[in-house]
Amino acid sequence: MDHSPLTYRQTVQPADCRRVADIVEATGYFSPEEVSIAVELVEEHLAKGAASGYLFLFAEKGGTTIGYACYGPIPGTLASYDFYWLAVHPDYQGQGVGKKLHAQMEALIIAAGGRKIYLDTSSRPQYEPTRKFHEGNGYRQCAFLEDYYAPGDGKVTFVKDI
Amino acid sequence: MDHSPLTYRQTVQPADCRRVADIVEATGYFSPEEVSIAVELVEEHLAKGAASGYLFLFAEKGGTTIGYACYGPIPGTLASYDFYWLAVHPDYQGQGVGKKLHAQMEALIIAAGGRKIYLDTSSRPQYEPTRKFHEGNGYRQCAFLEDYYAPGDGKVTFVKDI
Repeated sequence: MDHSPLTYRQTVQPADCRRVADIVEATGYFSPEEVSIAVELVEEHLAKGAASGYLFLFAEKGGTTIGYACYGPIPGTLASYDFYWLAVHPDYQGQGVGKKLHAQMEALIIAAGGRKIYLDTSSRPQYEPTRKFHEGNGYRQCAFLEDYYAPGDGKVTFVKDI
Repeated sequence: MDHSPLTYRQTVQPADCRRVADIVEATGYFSPEEVSIAVELVEEHLAKGAASGYLFLFAEKGGTTIGYACYGPIPGTLASYDFYWLAVHPDYQGQGVGKKLHAQMEALIIAAGGRKIYLDTSSRPQYEPTRKFHEGNGYRQCAFLEDYYAPGDGKVTFVKDI
């Protein structure tokens, strides 16, 4: 176990396209299409900055980026944020990095005036650990759209009032 | 009343930025921020084409663009579409143009393999006619997120199975 302190970084760098792809792929959790979408969000931020609507928080240990969260204000809302993505490289999972990243992201959203955080996840059984993770972070289910992603694969929306 | 036949156009032209702004503003229904978002969707399409995720259907009479719908496939889903926007210039409202635009858009989505169309609207009383319009087009409410847009202004999601 790497005992270097966990540090955070909000600035997005061109190398984050590759880092994000590596982390998301390494989890074994996401489809190739989802990996592409994850990288596109980084590219959008690199092209347009905060105006892209996608903000990032990277977790680093000893100079290595080991995980990240992607979130952003929802256009047309007063104080609602979308929590788009969180992934931790499998070599660093089980150490509470995801929970710490989430807490740090939440603190940034509160500081920016956010009052609600929303996230979507699949209703498929493989996402049960994801749903438990979010419930552990204080989210509650607020909507379910049947067959949204595909037949038998619904969208579950969670919200946290902050 | 203009008795020219109603025609449809899918190709997006640079002049549509101004046309969309004019139509959306003229309805008196949308905030300046919403007008900006409507125009941004046109700009996104002009910059990236269908890859923007925003598709358009314009309704024209005698060479004048009198209304439009904006929709697109939802990334990461098999056959779900978002119906983002529909507006008809007030000079041409009350003639069923909105309903025809919706029917034409739905036919295009079916032809492209879509199975579900989703749309979001505000829970505020002023949107009651909007909700009635969508119910008349076969949509049903499938989710409600309280205080989503602002305190007292929730998000109502509608779906149509096609």
